[in-house]
Amino acid sequence: MDKDGHTHHISQQFNDELERVRSHLLEMGGLVESQVTDAVHALLEADSARAEAVRTNDKRINSMELSIDEECIRILARRQPAASDLRLVIAVTKGITDLERVGDEARKIAEQAIQLCESGQSPKGYVEARHIGGLVVRMLHEALDAFARQDVDMALSVVEQDKRVDMEYASAMRELVTVMMEDPRTISRVLSIMWSLRSLERVGDHARNLAEYVIYLVKGEDVRHIGLQELASKIKS
Amino acid sequence: MDKDGHTHHISQQFNDELERVRSHLLEMGGLVESQVTDAVHALLEADSARAEAVRTNDKRINSMELSIDEECIRILARRQPAASDLRLVIAVTKGITDLERVGDEARKIAEQAIQLCESGQSPKGYVEARHIGGLVVRMLHEALDAFARQDVDMALSVVEQDKRVDMEYASAMRELVTVMMEDPRTISRVLSIMWSLRSLERVGDHARNLAEYVIYLVKGEDVRHIGLQELASKIKS
Repeated sequence: MDKDGHTHHISQQFNDELERVRSHLLEMGGLVESQVTDAVHALLEADSARAEAVRTNDKRINSMELSIDEECIRILARRQPAASDLRLVIAVTKGITDLERVGDEARKIAEQAIQLCESGQSPKGYVEARHIGGLVVRMLHEALDAFARQDVDMALSVVEQDKRVDMEYASAMRELVTVMMEDPRTISRVLSIMWSLRSLERVGDHARNLAEYVIYLVKGEDVRHIGLQELASKIKS
Repeated sequence: MDKDGHTHHISQQFNDELERVRSHLLEMGGLVESQVTDAVHALLEADSARAEAVRTNDKRINSMELSIDEECIRILARRQPAASDLRLVIAVTKGITDLERVGDEARKIAEQAIQLCESGQSPKGYVEARHIGGLVVRMLHEALDAFARQDVDMALSVVEQDKRVDMEYASAMRELVTVMMEDPRTISRVLSIMWSLRSLERVGDHARNLAEYVIYLVKGEDVRHIGLQELASKIKS
């Protein structure tokens, strides 16, 4: 094989490796997304079997994180990627940490669902859990889509949606405090819903982080910790 | 300059860069640690000025994360580190994410402290906040020490301490629920303490993550998501 053929061969292998690590992140993301969906359904329908399944699946997510991380480190060590390839590997190692933590939040919601199956339903908070759950699952889905398509506009829209989640979350919490005060016998059960909403709000934060890595990946610019306006103008530039 | 001299020069520069990124993580860690300490003090002493200072400082932590991350990416791109050097850079990029999130938790505690300055003290929960705050600040301090000295035994002890924090946290939460039920007028204020304890418990989780990166750094083995016993036996082997 001539030198160019060899180089081509190597770089084809390298591309395959990058492609594989990318698709592994998306696979992990898909699993995490369905974990959140299942956890919210288990909560809404007081389905303890489904909640138990979420708990069991979390182990799979943890081991996916480890193996994708190993792939990334192997690529860094052997291929010494530069420029956009390096950014992809970095975005993947950071992104899977967020996905793993989304998995943790899904597990926590499932645990609260189990608790509520035992103690009886909360008098309030389910409408809010369904609503905020829907919002953050969509954010997560779009962040993963944005990653798959390297779509910066979609990533920006995810970042924007996080503001709305935070507002809805704050207003749900205020309402639930009133419910507790009106009937203190409900405190424990309302708290279970509150912790679940808190977890959902965290899922929104992680989806936002993921979207920011997409922007970094495509634009080569770190956009964490800057305001929305500055972010939008950076992306348009 | 002869070839060896040049190589020596390059590798000396490379070592300096690694040393710098390591010490920047420790510097960021020191700031984050004092943010947690200050936030807890602000909560215990209803000191809203100190709480405000914590909020302001959080921006500095965020910008430290970004600049250390850039240093790491520059090292990966230019130096193409291998083996333990690569592990150091990876451990730093992962570790600073945890430190930044500890900073977020300190900010959240400060915000609850401000809330309590306005609404009046919670009838309970301060002893627990002081106690759990002390535990997690120590964990964080030891995790950073373990990082500085590459001390695997100390890192293992941090991982072990997290179990205790989780237990103390769960028992404090149970107690606070009873307080709320006994006097529903206290619900909002008790909730502020509960959120603060939750944040402290998260600080413990992040300190644990940091300790796990130290073990990875020194032993070259990823020890996330394995049980304590298996972890201890891996380290001894």
